[in-house]
Amino acid sequence: MSTFGKNIKVSVFGESHGEAIGAVIDGVPAGFEIDMDKVLVQMARRAPGKDKTATPRLEKDFPRVMSGILNGVTTGAPIACVIENTNTKSADYSNLLENPRPGHSDYTAFVKYGGNNDIRGGGHFSGRLTAPIVFAGAVLRQILEKKGIKIAAHISSIGNVYDSRFDGAEISDELIDTLNNSAFSLVDGSVEEKMRETVESARKDGDSVGGTIECAVVGMPIGVGGPLFSGIEGEISKAVFGIPSVKGIEFGAGFDSAHRRGSENNDAFEYKEGKVVTKTNNCGGILGGISNGMPIIFRAAIKPTPSISKQQETVNLKTKENTTLSVKGRHDPCIVPRAVPVIEAAAAIAIFDMLG
Amino acid sequence: MSTFGKNIKVSVFGESHGEAIGAVIDGVPAGFEIDMDKVLVQMARRAPGKDKTATPRLEKDFPRVMSGILNGVTTGAPIACVIENTNTKSADYSNLLENPRPGHSDYTAFVKYGGNNDIRGGGHFSGRLTAPIVFAGAVLRQILEKKGIKIAAHISSIGNVYDSRFDGAEISDELIDTLNNSAFSLVDGSVEEKMRETVESARKDGDSVGGTIECAVVGMPIGVGGPLFSGIEGEISKAVFGIPSVKGIEFGAGFDSAHRRGSENNDAFEYKEGKVVTKTNNCGGILGGISNGMPIIFRAAIKPTPSISKQQETVNLKTKENTTLSVKGRHDPCIVPRAVPVIEAAAAIAIFDMLG
Amino acid sequence: MSTFGKNIKVSVFGESHGEAIGAVIDGVPAGFEIDMDKVLVQMARRAPGKDKTATPRLEKDFPRVMSGILNGVTTGAPIACVIENTNTKSADYSNLLENPRPGHSDYTAFVKYGGNNDIRGGGHFSGRLTAPIVFAGAVLRQILEKKGIKIAAHISSIGNVYDSRFDGAEISDELIDTLNNSAFSLVDGSVEEKMRETVESARKDGDSVGGTIECAVVGMPIGVGGPLFSGIEGEISKAVFGIPSVKGIEFGAGFDSAHRRGSENNDAFEYKEGKVVTKTNNCGGILGGISNGMPIIFRAAIKPTPSISKQQETVNLKTKENTTLSVKGRHDPCIVPRAVPVIEAAAAIAIFDMLG
Amino acid sequence: MSTFGKNIKVSVFGESHGEAIGAVIDGVPAGFEIDMDKVLVQMARRAPGKDKTATPRLEKDFPRVMSGILNGVTTGAPIACVIENTNTKSADYSNLLENPRPGHSDYTAFVKYGGNNDIRGGGHFSGRLTAPIVFAGAVLRQILEKKGIKIAAHISSIGNVYDSRFDGAEISDELIDTLNNSAFSLVDGSVEEKMRETVESARKDGDSVGGTIECAVVGMPIGVGGPLFSGIEGEISKAVFGIPSVKGIEFGAGFDSAHRRGSENNDAFEYKEGKVVTKTNNCGGILGGISNGMPIIFRAAIKPTPSISKQQETVNLKTKENTTLSVKGRHDPCIVPRAVPVIEAAAAIAIFDMLG
Repeated sequence: MSTFGKNIKVSVFGESHGEAIGAVIDGVPAGFEIDMDKVLVQMARRAPGKDKTATPRLEKDFPRVMSGILNGVTTGAPIACVIENTNTKSADYSNLLENPRPGHSDYTAFVKYGGNNDIRGGGHFSGRLTAPIVFAGAVLRQILEKKGIKIAAHISSIGNVYDSRFDGAEISDELIDTLNNSAFSLVDGSVEEKMRETVESARKDGDSVGGTIECAVVGMPIGVGGPLFSGIEGEISKAVFGIPSVKGIEFGAGFDSAHRRGSENNDAFEYKEGKVVTKTNNCGGILGGISNGMPIIFRAAIKPTPSISKQQETVNLKTKENTTLSVKGRHDPCIVPRAVPVIEAAAAIAIFDMLG
Repeated sequence: MSTFGKNIKVSVFGESHGEAIGAVIDGVPAGFEIDMDKVLVQMARRAPGKDKTATPRLEKDFPRVMSGILNGVTTGAPIACVIENTNTKSADYSNLLENPRPGHSDYTAFVKYGGNNDIRGGGHFSGRLTAPIVFAGAVLRQILEKKGIKIAAHISSIGNVYDSRFDGAEISDELIDTLNNSAFSLVDGSVEEKMRETVESARKDGDSVGGTIECAVVGMPIGVGGPLFSGIEGEISKAVFGIPSVKGIEFGAGFDSAHRRGSENNDAFEYKEGKVVTKTNNCGGILGGISNGMPIIFRAAIKPTPSISKQQETVNLKTKENTTLSVKGRHDPCIVPRAVPVIEAAAAIAIFDMLG
Repeated sequence: MSTFGKNIKVSVFGESHGEAIGAVIDGVPAGFEIDMDKVLVQMARRAPGKDKTATPRLEKDFPRVMSGILNGVTTGAPIACVIENTNTKSADYSNLLENPRPGHSDYTAFVKYGGNNDIRGGGHFSGRLTAPIVFAGAVLRQILEKKGIKIAAHISSIGNVYDSRFDGAEISDELIDTLNNSAFSLVDGSVEEKMRETVESARKDGDSVGGTIECAVVGMPIGVGGPLFSGIEGEISKAVFGIPSVKGIEFGAGFDSAHRRGSENNDAFEYKEGKVVTKTNNCGGILGGISNGMPIIFRAAIKPTPSISKQQETVNLKTKENTTLSVKGRHDPCIVPRAVPVIEAAAAIAIFDMLG
Repeated sequence: MSTFGKNIKVSVFGESHGEAIGAVIDGVPAGFEIDMDKVLVQMARRAPGKDKTATPRLEKDFPRVMSGILNGVTTGAPIACVIENTNTKSADYSNLLENPRPGHSDYTAFVKYGGNNDIRGGGHFSGRLTAPIVFAGAVLRQILEKKGIKIAAHISSIGNVYDSRFDGAEISDELIDTLNNSAFSLVDGSVEEKMRETVESARKDGDSVGGTIECAVVGMPIGVGGPLFSGIEGEISKAVFGIPSVKGIEFGAGFDSAHRRGSENNDAFEYKEGKVVTKTNNCGGILGGISNGMPIIFRAAIKPTPSISKQQETVNLKTKENTTLSVKGRHDPCIVPRAVPVIEAAAAIAIFDMLG
């Protein structure tokens, strides 16, 4: 299903080339001011058409709020937003029901929905559905900020070009602010050019490229989460894997910790300015599934965009023969930059839900 | 919370040195034969004390079934099992409330539970709580097998020693069977000695070491899972992160796909013996969150056991001063071998829940 | 929250005088034809302004389907509908934040939402929010009908005027069809005049009147539901109490059975045309929480509309003094006739969810 | 399923004549003292064998706490209790798989579970399963009491003998205390004899008799619950219909309000000792699904015990012929007195879950 949460319910609807997409956020408490301009900034970070890393498809993506916010303040009723689909070119997708695109949901959706799903533009599986997720996250993170919790992510790698990682023990408000307002979020801005070259090179080859995104949640109260199936890692994963193209997630040292000894990986405790902190943050701010007050750090692996114009092998489901295919239409050679605010939104949704 | 699932509810209870641990599995359909000997094999794979990689603590870990199975057949009522705690040495843990062990839940649990949690042996956070998870998985996978679904995992790495990965496109029944009955599950048995040396070397240093586990779910029907928040990746992650010490998960090519181009990462479709298959399995059997009929493949990162006898820095929560600590007691220098059946169990629980 | 269900999620949003109201129905399988004319019939049955029992407020209440239905067939994606609020007269409600109306949610909502809720027209608590519920029910019942399950309700009483009850053992398709297409659904049409007189008499007095609605679900497969907290009674109740003004529910003989002996109340089994049936249906088609194949029968108590023009005692929350109030504006003196399709919709939603 | 709750999970397991019954209560916060003697009092109120209204079957029903309580204080881990089944006489039930008892779950369970369910003593459908529900309620209500919330119920009717109803506006601590410690809870003790005669008369006739139970939750904070599907009525109903034999529930004036006019049914607000109260409590303490600070009042209808020794008509599922049956064994002619603490427990579970 396309609904997330226990204490809140975020219900995402819509198909890429249908009437509209949107989301309902049920369970948001009343009395919080929501700055709609800040919401639009987040949606703009995700919006396509800003530069060569993104699809040239232009959308307005203006979220019309149907309920739940009155005079800029949450009313306690579900917050519903609708984003009309205005710029749709459906002719491109006509033969996809027959020839599933490798790396896409075409084949699995065809089997699951018996051919009744809306294939145009990927339908409900389209990356476009991340727009309402960003909307939901942009609303919820404003409330989290009033509780002292900030969320920031950056492109940690594209192809083999790496940004610096967060210093897990110390992430400044300035850095968070810069990342939150950037369309190409980086800790070390100097790698941007190389990353763009990597994307451009793939684009010229009719190909695409993947990457990773690192995200930090700063200001978490100690004691959120719980043992076994209520751990923070599981909750965030459930939300983050809800984003198309995510194929891996790791917390703190993550897969690196698998190569380490305990003496290297354990984070020493110390008192600092009267507070218990850890000297390092290999645990990503989570011990026993519960927040320890340090930044929560995770990285998500984003696979290369499956839509490529290079010729690929596929099958014809009608003739039951092998065939080839080249994906036409407007596609991002690399979705990682635009996925940064989506990852932040998923984190915001998960954290909000956990805080109850 | 310690309860998992939507269509089934697996509720795990108990504290390491309390009266008993156990699980209730609610929602299992009636009429399935359960071979209790097969359940005991899985529990034995997880049980400690088998060799030098594991703690010498001896336990019987015999699961007493209280309800839900009559004459070896499921009755439709919740299946409850109780495992008595018999061999507990609590004196070892007396000062942990004051001096939290690095890498453990001691500090976060102390804050969350206000010092009321049962600290003895890690209480509800103990690795011992994975015994009822294995029980639940061992019951559910027998039902999955009747539907043609098999699950097998192996130690894919310990420290820097690697086992061969699964061939994602083809995993034989023989291999599955071998892995399912091994206490040190490997695809390529020749690496066992090196792995054991790695563990033994850590043990001698009063240290520990981490690793990774790779798991395959073979025989999945096509069309299970769904878009956005109902994807298979999210469901499996929620269960797998329920296992203490897991800090990362990736599906198919996972983090490797972040370095790739789409043309390398997309899995070509082809007709093979009348069925649509993919030539490679970089997607780990999941496209758009939905199973495509190929084996579901994931890898979990297991951090090194935090309990080490080497001296570590910590704090005294009473005196509010920095101090040091050396963890005494019986601990595994590497929990990866014993975690293999636990990962399989978590996968079984998640898959069973998804099948509805 | 305003979200219902486990296997489906029905998320209702909107405020009476806000931009729009609507619903998202997540989890509806693909491939079912939905006749939108039939949906409109159900919405028309609930719509106000048809006669003197209803408010003269005219609305178009046209549900715009945003996603999930393509060319009249469900696509498997969430079905979202938006109903614009066009005919709103908000001036009437200006002083309600200060003087809560007896019998309304004004006071409890004021406390819960700290005065931030949208009070206009009752906001999210308005009976208008039952329109999207009817939409959801009208879609889902078409799918249920394809599985042989029909749902029909009637006004079983208004004030002290009673309709005949369903014959629990035998409900004809003709009766179901008649009830499903009536704006004043009765088993025995001859009581309509007396019922209308009762309503009209209350209206003339500036007062209102309550009633009961009886609902039948015919064609249920045997074996749906389950023991303890998964019983059909609980599931239907959860949905039916979701409708404003419902204050009681009973299944089969319900409260009457409390006066009976077991020998009167037990339903004798017999073989009839090769099928096991019961001679009577005091259990309302439910034994041990599970359907027995007989019609599921329940009755809901609807309290009199709290909005009355008669003077009532209330408090002024600002001055903290007692005061009086007369509710102005357009209100139904009896909502029971319009509530009939809403009860049917709630039953459809609950049954659909239970069928998984 | 046999699991209840969102913020807590109460998972009830066991079969009447199996190894044991019990419950796991997941999600209880740490640090609350639990007086086990008070728990035993509640279990004793439910226990059979006290007098002629109850079955002579003697049970110890001693709940062994496996986890979650250490030195009388909740630890934050799931609270698990196991009650061994010691006094089981299974021979009585041998032919029930063939001849389903009218009014019982025998037939529906047979169809649902394909004959694999444990039929002995009713298996998982047995009234005995209410013992762990009472255990769970008895634990949770002690925590509720620390928050100022008290719960009390009484037999409001047996057959046609009625106790006085609660004065919904004012329920004294003394009355609550008396009811909570009685095995035959009545507001007006003088009706006990007539009620016992009604039961005894049914017993002598080889028959049984039903009744109603009225329950009050006093001290509810204002603002608990919510609109539509999160109303208090729905939450309590879901828990109360989880109790076998409940066939109806009403809140406040309930079905009576269906006969009334709004001017009679609306509860006037007034300031009393600086607090907003209502003069009457026809709404049962709930407006718009939300608590208004007055006692929450509901009544549940309990059907007559279906097990009667009188001859009844049934079918033989093997021969497919009509036949007759007389239920032998030990059965309560009226379960209403013993159901009082069960209703209180269900209310406690529902309220606790709602408070989050």
